[in-house]
Amino acid sequence: MHKTTGLPVVGMVGGGQLARMTHQAAIALGQSLRVLASSPEDSAALVAHDVVLGSHTSYEDLAAFAAGCDVVTFDHEHVPTEHLRALAAAGHTVQPGADALLHAQDKQVMRSRLGALGVPVPRWAPVGSVDELAEFAGGAWPVVVKAVRGGYDGRGVWVVSSAGEAAELFGTGTPLLVEELVPLRRELAAVVARSPFGQGAAWPVVQTVQSGGICVEVLAPAPELDPAVAEEAERLALRIAGELGVVGVLAVELFERTDGALLVNELAMRPHNSAHWTIEGARTSQFEQHLRAVLDYPLGSTELAVPAVAMANVLAGPDTEGLPGLDERVHHLSARWPHLKIHLYGKQPRPGRKIGHVTAAGRDLPALRRDATAAAAYLATGVSDEVTHQ
Amino acid sequence: MHKTTGLPVVGMVGGGQLARMTHQAAIALGQSLRVLASSPEDSAALVAHDVVLGSHTSYEDLAAFAAGCDVVTFDHEHVPTEHLRALAAAGHTVQPGADALLHAQDKQVMRSRLGALGVPVPRWAPVGSVDELAEFAGGAWPVVVKAVRGGYDGRGVWVVSSAGEAAELFGTGTPLLVEELVPLRRELAAVVARSPFGQGAAWPVVQTVQSGGICVEVLAPAPELDPAVAEEAERLALRIAGELGVVGVLAVELFERTDGALLVNELAMRPHNSAHWTIEGARTSQFEQHLRAVLDYPLGSTELAVPAVAMANVLAGPDTEGLPGLDERVHHLSARWPHLKIHLYGKQPRPGRKIGHVTAAGRDLPALRRDATAAAAYLATGVSDEVTHQ
Repeated sequence: MHKTTGLPVVGMVGGGQLARMTHQAAIALGQSLRVLASSPEDSAALVAHDVVLGSHTSYEDLAAFAAGCDVVTFDHEHVPTEHLRALAAAGHTVQPGADALLHAQDKQVMRSRLGALGVPVPRWAPVGSVDELAEFAGGAWPVVVKAVRGGYDGRGVWVVSSAGEAAELFGTGTPLLVEELVPLRRELAAVVARSPFGQGAAWPVVQTVQSGGICVEVLAPAPELDPAVAEEAERLALRIAGELGVVGVLAVELFERTDGALLVNELAMRPHNSAHWTIEGARTSQFEQHLRAVLDYPLGSTELAVPAVAMANVLAGPDTEGLPGLDERVHHLSARWPHLKIHLYGKQPRPGRKIGHVTAAGRDLPALRRDATAAAAYLATGVSDEVTHQ
Repeated sequence: MHKTTGLPVVGMVGGGQLARMTHQAAIALGQSLRVLASSPEDSAALVAHDVVLGSHTSYEDLAAFAAGCDVVTFDHEHVPTEHLRALAAAGHTVQPGADALLHAQDKQVMRSRLGALGVPVPRWAPVGSVDELAEFAGGAWPVVVKAVRGGYDGRGVWVVSSAGEAAELFGTGTPLLVEELVPLRRELAAVVARSPFGQGAAWPVVQTVQSGGICVEVLAPAPELDPAVAEEAERLALRIAGELGVVGVLAVELFERTDGALLVNELAMRPHNSAHWTIEGARTSQFEQHLRAVLDYPLGSTELAVPAVAMANVLAGPDTEGLPGLDERVHHLSARWPHLKIHLYGKQPRPGRKIGHVTAAGRDLPALRRDATAAAAYLATGVSDEVTHQ
């Protein structure tokens, strides 16, 4: 509790952009997010008032951080499970708890559990050798090999077209699993929140657009999605949140197969890139909702604030001499697209790095998408390719 | 400029809720607001990363604060004019500049200037004695006496029904002016922003509802306002911003006389309570727009994001034993009104203190108003009077 206002202190482990945007939401709720950051230059460490430097893999750092927090939560999944259990055993409130979070940390645990719950997932198997891989494929290449732990943004995922091609993946000791390459219509995400009290709330299902394994665009709500399928996805995500005992935001990444069936791809138990659009597009943003959920506040309304939203990530381009700097790009972007909302994360723009996102909210989703992607590309590179979108 | 991102550093003098909410907006723009606060418990000092403690009346403190800021701006009007001029002379960029800000600091200067510009204002005169007051009134009491400098939220304003009643106001040395008591239909506010480049942008005109000289509600857009009158008010505010050389947000508080005529009451050159609704209700909030303006960025779109918004201030009630604390009130409010947005300022809830505001955004303004005022009253007192609103 804050000593003058009696309002709670939430501690977030990890100082990335998710913590940065959660701090913005905390401010409105009369709070100030406490952040465990690995560097003073971390995205959230640049803007939060209450920054603790330390390592999320050190139990001592975590325990010192947790002291004085009403609840500890996360902007990533990389805290070792044994530390989560030890924090809870020491009397700290940790949300989501270790038993839930394990399903966002370990793809094998997640796939097994979802299978046991009857949730549709791609055909998969743990795999320890080239022979097992070949047996799984049964001649039907390519297949997808994934690291059981630690992958994100396309890392730890390999599309493999022959057993020989996968040889180097084995023998490193990294536990792997293999899954079918799902014939995709597109990818969707169903994002929900759940409180310890058991209240759940779902935002409308969105379409996510990936490039090189990284989410580059989100369209909300998912265009031309059968309302029955959308409801099915929302119910599925709420059910998973309940069954796994998730507290906080749960993002369920979905494959929409070419035959229209939905399969669960991944789970994330924290604010997620697929719901950044909620800042402008929903009554309650995912960042506020995550705080509400981990504090066991009643959840906020997830209804759309506007008919449609397009979000595009800003993935920094090459640092080419002579191009305008980020500040100058913000000027030009604002002049060209005064209705767009810019979110910059305070990160050094190294090539390929996700340094921000741009949101367009309004009515006409194709036009919003065109504006958001053109603006994000310009912000990323300093070069406008807008003419190609006309 | 921030050393890693090349994005600008804005310094705001004053650590109140306006700076607090400006910091939220700065985060999205990739910045981190630098705040000159008088206490570590100031509203903005509790949440900003870059807090400098010092006095806004000390030139040394102001100059030390300004070093390293790309631009210095304000969350109040109380910095002495000579310090503003000295900062500018020392090479600091100060927005709004001293010549503009003087019109928000000194009501006599403001009234004289607006009169010279042909802007309609209430009939007024400087007044130095009971005799002058009686002469101005000419038997038509009551009249309104105002301190020329330093008043806000009803302080420094007296409605006087006889010359004798005003006797104690004279002789204190406080410069005073007197003005007619305008027969009011209601109060309005026209809020605009202007950049050094000369770009101007107006939000829709709103209705403000006062109680005891303090704004308690804002309705956006002002209900049943003749569109021609609304446009006249917006043009007037933009014209004043241009004529006075305002940079940043300018709030023009207006009287709508019973005969429909508009008169300018007060000016504020900073984010203003009458535009808190823009956080949820407009594409660009006043806090982001103030940053854009003082940095000479192109201004953001001021169009409505939703059809209607009601905002109600939370003025803390008496600290009655046995009533739920603020955290518990937030719980109950959220359960009853999940669609409302809460903004708490981190302030100790002393009776009468403005500790937050509540915003309801949607379609049906009377319903939104009922919800926002009931919720704000509950948050303020811990007692629901909602039944009286049904």
